[in-house]
Amino acid sequence: MSAYAELMDFQRETEALVQVMGRLGWDQETMMPRGAATQRSEEMAALEGVLHARRTDPRIGEWLEAAEAPDAAGEAAMRLIRRDFARHTRVPARLASELARVTSISQGVWAEARERDEVGHFLPMLAQVVALRREEAAALADGGDPYDALLDDYEPGASGAEIAAMFARMRPRLVALREAVLGSGRERAPLKGLYPSEAQMRLARRLAELFGYDFARGRLDLAVHPFSSGSGSDVRITTRVAEHDPFNCLYSTIHETGHAAYEQGIDPAWRLTPLGQGGSMGVHESQSRIFENQIGRSRAFCGYLHSLMAAEFGDMGLEGAEQFYATVNRVAPGYIRTEADEVQYNLHIMMRFDLERELVAGRLEAAQLEDAWNARFEADFGVAVDRPAHGILQDVHWSIGLFGYFPTYALGNVYAGCLHAALRRDLPDLDAQLAAGDLAPATGWLREKVQRHGGLYRPREVIARACGGEPDEAPLLDYLEAKFGALYGL
Amino acid sequence: MSAYAELMDFQRETEALVQVMGRLGWDQETMMPRGAATQRSEEMAALEGVLHARRTDPRIGEWLEAAEAPDAAGEAAMRLIRRDFARHTRVPARLASELARVTSISQGVWAEARERDEVGHFLPMLAQVVALRREEAAALADGGDPYDALLDDYEPGASGAEIAAMFARMRPRLVALREAVLGSGRERAPLKGLYPSEAQMRLARRLAELFGYDFARGRLDLAVHPFSSGSGSDVRITTRVAEHDPFNCLYSTIHETGHAAYEQGIDPAWRLTPLGQGGSMGVHESQSRIFENQIGRSRAFCGYLHSLMAAEFGDMGLEGAEQFYATVNRVAPGYIRTEADEVQYNLHIMMRFDLERELVAGRLEAAQLEDAWNARFEADFGVAVDRPAHGILQDVHWSIGLFGYFPTYALGNVYAGCLHAALRRDLPDLDAQLAAGDLAPATGWLREKVQRHGGLYRPREVIARACGGEPDEAPLLDYLEAKFGALYGL
Repeated sequence: MSAYAELMDFQRETEALVQVMGRLGWDQETMMPRGAATQRSEEMAALEGVLHARRTDPRIGEWLEAAEAPDAAGEAAMRLIRRDFARHTRVPARLASELARVTSISQGVWAEARERDEVGHFLPMLAQVVALRREEAAALADGGDPYDALLDDYEPGASGAEIAAMFARMRPRLVALREAVLGSGRERAPLKGLYPSEAQMRLARRLAELFGYDFARGRLDLAVHPFSSGSGSDVRITTRVAEHDPFNCLYSTIHETGHAAYEQGIDPAWRLTPLGQGGSMGVHESQSRIFENQIGRSRAFCGYLHSLMAAEFGDMGLEGAEQFYATVNRVAPGYIRTEADEVQYNLHIMMRFDLERELVAGRLEAAQLEDAWNARFEADFGVAVDRPAHGILQDVHWSIGLFGYFPTYALGNVYAGCLHAALRRDLPDLDAQLAAGDLAPATGWLREKVQRHGGLYRPREVIARACGGEPDEAPLLDYLEAKFGALYGL
Repeated sequence: MSAYAELMDFQRETEALVQVMGRLGWDQETMMPRGAATQRSEEMAALEGVLHARRTDPRIGEWLEAAEAPDAAGEAAMRLIRRDFARHTRVPARLASELARVTSISQGVWAEARERDEVGHFLPMLAQVVALRREEAAALADGGDPYDALLDDYEPGASGAEIAAMFARMRPRLVALREAVLGSGRERAPLKGLYPSEAQMRLARRLAELFGYDFARGRLDLAVHPFSSGSGSDVRITTRVAEHDPFNCLYSTIHETGHAAYEQGIDPAWRLTPLGQGGSMGVHESQSRIFENQIGRSRAFCGYLHSLMAAEFGDMGLEGAEQFYATVNRVAPGYIRTEADEVQYNLHIMMRFDLERELVAGRLEAAQLEDAWNARFEADFGVAVDRPAHGILQDVHWSIGLFGYFPTYALGNVYAGCLHAALRRDLPDLDAQLAAGDLAPATGWLREKVQRHGGLYRPREVIARACGGEPDEAPLLDYLEAKFGALYGL
């Protein structure tokens, strides 16, 4: 057996075990009895130990040395394995297990702090997480930039400096758009009334199918936070239901369907190989965002969704499809990133990006983070944070050590902007199709151009190949200005 | 760290991974999308590989050599680890993986054969399974009896010769009882009518709670075949629903609740240790059987269940509680073991036990099995098997290599008979409690006497300690003769 074949066999078993871990995570959020939490953490820790041992197995180094890839896909797979092996072997086992232990505690402290709406013990706990992640970043960076070393785990090849430069270009136009919209005097009311859970879930299933989700290789359940999990032929999604706000359930479902469509759309030949998952968090988010926003919140598709919802819920207190479209795309002040509209969302990300870069670089300490957050929020959004749950406690990410993750959300929006421009170029009848509820041409285009490639190309490369040019922020900003300019009469 | 502590830490991680495997099995039968089957088998094979490597890890031998148990529980744990290690190291890795591969194929062949109701390719496939299991049995027996070596995996310490002797004592009384009942001229009709699924599931949940199932550490779902899975603080059960036969759902639920009560009742200090699971298949089955039959099908509890069901379904075409009791305990000719009544069930087991002992010993070949089955069935039950699905294809066990498993069902019945006699001795008011739906004294007695001990004692020992004497078949036979003698006016 060749070194290449041995490496791929070994890797395939690892990928299978990664899927098992994903299934445990899914179960924990959807099915697990509440009394099983402690035991589940032991089960996951045992499996994590197995995975860590496999990921740092010295034979991987030997195989990589000796193996010859038979083709371009094999080369791409070896590149991904080499990258993972380097990352995992650079971090000492002691540090890896300490990080797992501390972030697990820290997440509990965060959850309790958020529940009580008191920062309390969270910042001292976060200081420990920051210290460990700085240590890890230094080990990973190997002399390079520590923040980039963390970022690279979520968006291979991206750099903090490039993202900062891009954000600097985006910021003035987003701030101007936000001020113009909020100053337009056209306030939109949110939806009124109650929308029964069962009808929302029925519609959610319908939308998932409409957007191409394959229920033979997945399922839709309820969870506190919507997510997509799994790769290959078992990709599951969750959503949530608030009876006063059906858009929460429906657009969460469309968003997660975008993530799942990516995983379900990958060439089945790459199942359980390094190429068998989405290429980066940014590319992943581009798929969920273009499903949710550029397609799902378009005027054309809103017309179709309005008819579906009206059949289920009556007129919803709205005058017609145009008011429905305006309501779906309502821009309003708010504290919470996950509830932010398309205009303001990236401003939330920029703020987190700047703060976490300072933290990782050691120019900001966890103890100063609440003040820094609140000052920056007021500067960017014009209102003071009224309570910690609306401020520094709103996101789970930092509590579990996710530094370098936030910018991938904005990158996803930028990529979605590029893909949307290319999609409209390639499908001149897109609006007529969306208005008729025919999503197959759009979802088929994304599958063909992006999703089927899985991990074959580097993140920017897959977007560039799909769009016919290097991705940048201009298409997103043009789209936002045109859409919200029209909606708010600017 | 002492050798004992190292061994126990290692074992704890293994036990946690065993739980993960259990969860995958549960998911496969309840939640998994149908398109995920192939990938799931790869996931389970990868995890099985991890478990096999751990179970045969040479360090276990060294630790066992050097370790000193601190107490009796530690000694029991080491005894179980030593036994498992010996079993796993005696079977060559090649044979273990060949068995896994062949039985996985064979199960598919069996399922297809049963679906088509044609023996077809099943017997040649079974011949391969038998050959591999004979080879494994010889390796495990290490000069001893091969059938006992297989049996020992399910019922440690049991022997085929002892079971054969016990069955020889049971057989005449069971045959006489069966003939008397069926010849009594009192035929009972099965239940008539349709019973909506939702109401059945509502009642099933109610019954599980009544029998002490802790939903905070478990859940009840639907599956094709009812089962209980998991240990410690995550023990899940499934049931099934047939709209024309609510007893199927309700008594399956009570049966699985018995298995789950055993796992949930084990001393929590032993969670994820070798003592943290039921002591044997026979003891396990004693808990499910005493829940289902001696308690669940008693006249007293049937009176209570009748009132619950009448509130949900009306009079069900019955004249009252006494006719309900007679219907629940209806004895009728039938081909299928899993549908057999208390009188005939053990005769089904005896037949399988005799056939599989001959198979393992090499005195019977798979090619002859259908004829042997049909001849024996007609001799024992007085009717010819009308089609393979009612005969040799009815049980999955042999197709997946489970030889030595069937007798544990009858052992469970025998143990349940002993426990029932002791329970009635200790709880003189049992019938009044059952009639009032107060099951806590009975389930509490079982938890205290049997369940909490988990794997601490050897199987016969735990029953003997609970009953105050060595278990034998007499209490079961006395109970059956008294109960069915009264029901059928013998």
